[in-house]
Amino acid sequence: MKAELVSVGTELLLGQIDDTNARWISEQLAAIGVDVRRRYTVGDNLDRIVDVIGEAAAEADVVLVTGGLGPTQDDLTRDAIARLAGLELVRHPEIEEMLREKFRGFSADPMPTSNLRQADVPTGARIIRPERGTAPGLIVGLPSGSRIYATPGVPDEMVEMMTGTILPELASSVGGGVIASRVLRVAGMGESAVGEVLTDLFDASTNPTVAYLASMGEVKVRLTAKAASEQAADDLLGPLVEEVLARIGDVVFSVEDESLEESVLRLLAREQLTIACAESLTGGSISGRLTGVAGASVSFVGSVVAYTSTAKRDILGVSQGTLDGPGVVSEACALEMAAGARRVFGADLGLASTGVAGPEPHGGQRPGTVWVALDSASVSHARGFRVNGERDRVIQWSQQAALDLVRRFLDGRPLPVSDPTV
Amino acid sequence: MKAELVSVGTELLLGQIDDTNARWISEQLAAIGVDVRRRYTVGDNLDRIVDVIGEAAAEADVVLVTGGLGPTQDDLTRDAIARLAGLELVRHPEIEEMLREKFRGFSADPMPTSNLRQADVPTGARIIRPERGTAPGLIVGLPSGSRIYATPGVPDEMVEMMTGTILPELASSVGGGVIASRVLRVAGMGESAVGEVLTDLFDASTNPTVAYLASMGEVKVRLTAKAASEQAADDLLGPLVEEVLARIGDVVFSVEDESLEESVLRLLAREQLTIACAESLTGGSISGRLTGVAGASVSFVGSVVAYTSTAKRDILGVSQGTLDGPGVVSEACALEMAAGARRVFGADLGLASTGVAGPEPHGGQRPGTVWVALDSASVSHARGFRVNGERDRVIQWSQQAALDLVRRFLDGRPLPVSDPTV
Repeated sequence: MKAELVSVGTELLLGQIDDTNARWISEQLAAIGVDVRRRYTVGDNLDRIVDVIGEAAAEADVVLVTGGLGPTQDDLTRDAIARLAGLELVRHPEIEEMLREKFRGFSADPMPTSNLRQADVPTGARIIRPERGTAPGLIVGLPSGSRIYATPGVPDEMVEMMTGTILPELASSVGGGVIASRVLRVAGMGESAVGEVLTDLFDASTNPTVAYLASMGEVKVRLTAKAASEQAADDLLGPLVEEVLARIGDVVFSVEDESLEESVLRLLAREQLTIACAESLTGGSISGRLTGVAGASVSFVGSVVAYTSTAKRDILGVSQGTLDGPGVVSEACALEMAAGARRVFGADLGLASTGVAGPEPHGGQRPGTVWVALDSASVSHARGFRVNGERDRVIQWSQQAALDLVRRFLDGRPLPVSDPTV
Repeated sequence: MKAELVSVGTELLLGQIDDTNARWISEQLAAIGVDVRRRYTVGDNLDRIVDVIGEAAAEADVVLVTGGLGPTQDDLTRDAIARLAGLELVRHPEIEEMLREKFRGFSADPMPTSNLRQADVPTGARIIRPERGTAPGLIVGLPSGSRIYATPGVPDEMVEMMTGTILPELASSVGGGVIASRVLRVAGMGESAVGEVLTDLFDASTNPTVAYLASMGEVKVRLTAKAASEQAADDLLGPLVEEVLARIGDVVFSVEDESLEESVLRLLAREQLTIACAESLTGGSISGRLTGVAGASVSFVGSVVAYTSTAKRDILGVSQGTLDGPGVVSEACALEMAAGARRVFGADLGLASTGVAGPEPHGGQRPGTVWVALDSASVSHARGFRVNGERDRVIQWSQQAALDLVRRFLDGRPLPVSDPTV
């Protein structure tokens, strides 16, 4: 099955936002064996949207369109599809009622009538009812036999419709073979080092294949196999996953594409332990990541974000001697903060971060200097390191390093030591 | 001048990497007044690359191609351009010498002969010598008068050629004209309502134009003007910005494309006030957003993330009566948390969130029930509301509502009241 993708939105052509949808959809289609031939991006212009969807439909069995289904005048995808298919747009009474009901849930004001544009549907089109958003998705067959799937451009609304309706429908039409992937996630080892250790496993292999994807403080290793069945794909992947773990098991925090915070919470729940944080340079963002996971309250009890020396001393109990001596950016301060978090919240584990996010130096240290620390009944461990780069990069690497300390401790892996230059 | 962009690479169509090049180039072209009409992405297949570049060249004055200029067999952009232009590929002696010299800098081994593919150039093409990488860029005129610019896909090699050669050349051919944008950001009013209030301003206008972009809890209103100079573009945009502010000034938190947290910190610094937070359902993420901004420490002093009732009582001073009576998800609890944050950290303002992020009910309330509160010497205000949707959506809307409370207070705008159903 051949697919082409069309992303609609002038904001894309102006470079105002990244087209994360196109990548996500491409990845999902590859995983079910649908071949993406081309992607197009087009602005909010009716004639051009019609042209581009028409070009795509001339080449492909299915065309996936994202964007341009909202309520405003510049949302033109509905009109373009209707014109291309030679169909009328007709107001859909069920969708109209759904829009009114959703709007009552948001607001006591009367609903703007422009919202009803979202209830206009090409005659005969199938609709995908939205859960999160308000704009329905559309499925329209063209006389040529190609099929158009249109979803809103808001990423979580698109993902909802793709995973709930479109991908299952396409997967069943593809039939036969499956493409299965396993994603191993790595913290504490760089992409080229991971690649080097694993290179011989994949040099001669076209099935399974490996792909590396590095992002802030982590590397995803994706192993992909094509086979006749799920079972056959698993049989290809299983021994390879084992071999990768035998080589770099200490740095793999998940073999199931979990985030680092999900892995930490899973391990905390398994060990029936609670955690509290004391955050300085990460400013609450470690806690934010942990509490973003459903069920976090089983293990996470709370945090103190202590951005000032006074707060570190008065709330977390960092000693005046530490503040006056090694200072707020030091091993001693990180360890006392971690112990303080544990004590203040009565938690089993205390996790702390302190350092200099930048761009200005702080506490006599240069930007990028970071200490993270873990405190428990049995261990009190700090790690110092330096991060090159801008503020957001320093903060994100610090989050990863702190969470990875907990992950390694709970998983019985060796705890990383400090960079000797810090 | 009309441009179309072509990104070449099967890894893009498989969704293995983001096409950050396309966004960056789009943004740069908009800034010099080049109109990007369409973008294409195509895999490493000679016929399809020829087709796509040909389609683009049929519509546009210039076609910018990235990717497919490297040394391996799947790098086919050179061949595609030569075929399309009806030109021979000829080995370029100067580039060959440059390649040999660069290779001696990397390695003592003999250079793989495949590297020399990078010295093959369509006859008569201009070349852009690479500084960082090894593959030269190509500039080829087509008989139709369109011009093709091709650069490597490696982002820093592309940026080097764009900024060094291509953008200056295009800017000089565009001659003068600029495209200028103003981005107004809105919290507390939906996309369709904003569109409705402003629709008459843009109905008949092709210059300036308006575009709306909704994301979690906010709407961006982008006004774009084309004019002969920056000054002329500003003259077109200025009165329109004023008119928009006259209509919806209460909900516009920035006219300079600032994030909500940047706006809050700017206003806090202007008023020389400090802030502390008490976060429950937002779990540290409000603090994380504030401290993500450089210079946050001028105004932000700290937070308590109090995920348990005990922490709310013992650290923030929420009364046992409130915990036993209205409970942790209540106006009273939010107000006491905000007052507690202010007291614990000695801050001028205290900001609190409590509620049910979901998916499970909590404190006797259903998921999506949220209270945010602000406490200062002069005001103590809480707002209750409901959010439909999943945990991440509930958390993000709650962040927006809390930060918007501070923004409105500091900006002398009316504070939003509670939804009567909460």
